[in-house]
Amino acid sequence: MLSLTILGNNSAIPAFGRNPTAQVLQLQDDYFLIDCGEGTQSQLSKYKIRRSKINCIFISHLHGDHYFGLIGLLTSMSLLSRTQDLHIYGPAQLEQIINIQLEVADTKLSYSLFFHAIHTPGVILDDNKFSVRIFPLQHRIECWGFLFRQKKKPRSIDPNKIKNYEIPASFYGKLQNGEDYTTQKGNTIHNDLVTMANSPCKSYAYCADTIYDEGLVEIVQGVDILYHETTYLNASADKAAARYHCTTSQAGSIALKAGVKKLIIGHFSSRYEHLDDFLTETTAVFKNTELSREGTCYFT
Amino acid sequence: MLSLTILGNNSAIPAFGRNPTAQVLQLQDDYFLIDCGEGTQSQLSKYKIRRSKINCIFISHLHGDHYFGLIGLLTSMSLLSRTQDLHIYGPAQLEQIINIQLEVADTKLSYSLFFHAIHTPGVILDDNKFSVRIFPLQHRIECWGFLFRQKKKPRSIDPNKIKNYEIPASFYGKLQNGEDYTTQKGNTIHNDLVTMANSPCKSYAYCADTIYDEGLVEIVQGVDILYHETTYLNASADKAAARYHCTTSQAGSIALKAGVKKLIIGHFSSRYEHLDDFLTETTAVFKNTELSREGTCYFT
Repeated sequence: MLSLTILGNNSAIPAFGRNPTAQVLQLQDDYFLIDCGEGTQSQLSKYKIRRSKINCIFISHLHGDHYFGLIGLLTSMSLLSRTQDLHIYGPAQLEQIINIQLEVADTKLSYSLFFHAIHTPGVILDDNKFSVRIFPLQHRIECWGFLFRQKKKPRSIDPNKIKNYEIPASFYGKLQNGEDYTTQKGNTIHNDLVTMANSPCKSYAYCADTIYDEGLVEIVQGVDILYHETTYLNASADKAAARYHCTTSQAGSIALKAGVKKLIIGHFSSRYEHLDDFLTETTAVFKNTELSREGTCYFT
Repeated sequence: MLSLTILGNNSAIPAFGRNPTAQVLQLQDDYFLIDCGEGTQSQLSKYKIRRSKINCIFISHLHGDHYFGLIGLLTSMSLLSRTQDLHIYGPAQLEQIINIQLEVADTKLSYSLFFHAIHTPGVILDDNKFSVRIFPLQHRIECWGFLFRQKKKPRSIDPNKIKNYEIPASFYGKLQNGEDYTTQKGNTIHNDLVTMANSPCKSYAYCADTIYDEGLVEIVQGVDILYHETTYLNASADKAAARYHCTTSQAGSIALKAGVKKLIIGHFSSRYEHLDDFLTETTAVFKNTELSREGTCYFT
């Protein structure tokens, strides 16, 4: 199971009740916070996502609408007596920004904070349940996209069926990897007699902020959900390019070329009060598009 | 006229819909932002106070609930193409915190930002309309209180009466200062025949965060409005002292001893959902007390 909850869908300045970028990705039992604009901790409370569930935070770049809420979240976690480790992945300078603000307040966090500077495209996190790959986005300053992939889930051993066979427990791991068991007498017990398949692995790609870049197509090929920024409507394509942002049709075009299953768009400019045109313009290019709406949870 | 609008009345962690500390003081045509917790720019929008009206910001100390909203406000002002100067008064280290966050984003502000480090008790701003004095508060880190005083307003010349006398325009300034005019023939035209008094000058003292400190009594003596923190109810007096904060009765006691006209209390701990007891306990000591409530404007 993969679900994505939007906490902020606006760019630059908070407007029309919309907050700057932040979202929570859930992969099974793991919660990842992706970007952390001002007000993220209040949005977490509003949508009843406990801060304590989050163990990893990913910051795409150091424009304020993507991280000004981070220091408040970190200190609140400490005030709430968090003890479990927290890992932050972001551009190297972010560590200094965090540290100076802790130092001037004479704050010692109640938990261990591990900062991982990101600087080279590739896998930055490789767990037995998922991997996280970063890739460069073309923006005004250093900026990173994130690709989350669940790993092929091991098959589940069926407790009702396994008891009918004499298979040593030491072989259970191989059963979960799909192997058949051969008895001492040379009989084969086919794997699917004692195990069950799990749900397919899901993937999520996060692309904000970026100019239109067809180089992304290969990277996000076939993902279950692609989040791609659409700061501007098509009428402002010139402005989008000048500011290293994208339009609706451009995001739709990336989704189409990459053959993704679903596109979610966001990072809307504060010049737009209503968002309907964003959906209309993008679906004209890529049908299975949804607007990112704050508080909404998207499943796959 | 002096008015105070509360944008945030909570301490430490946002809770129960309450925001961290920020308030806007208006003295005639001048707007001062006092402290700037996370979410202040959104609170300004919510209560329809235009960011462009604010030319001076005062930061009491560098605990996050008093300044984490500042960098977002500064950058939003720039994104909105502000051109008029902005002055910030706060502890010296705040300048570095601002600058590093502008640098990593490659941000050049659209306006001139003047940072004034505060470090010595005394007058830090002396205008012909008002003065601002800082005084130390006893807290866990360097912390400052602010005392705003309107200056004696010049008398207004009554346009209907002045035309009845032959007084040269060059003497108008002295009339506004209360002087009588003596004609060339030696006749005295009494000042109050041609001028009108203006409203009395108002004063406001801001004390957050602080342990109970009777040294404040002399400093805030007789002010029209005193804002004093009450982080805890009386039952938590020990905790208040241990954390260099105050209780309700302690704030009431300072107000009573200082003979202020009105006391406003705030900086409520996130442990309290309801605030009624804060008012009950404080008014038992000092009758003319009001709770700081977000969005409420207090006049004097």
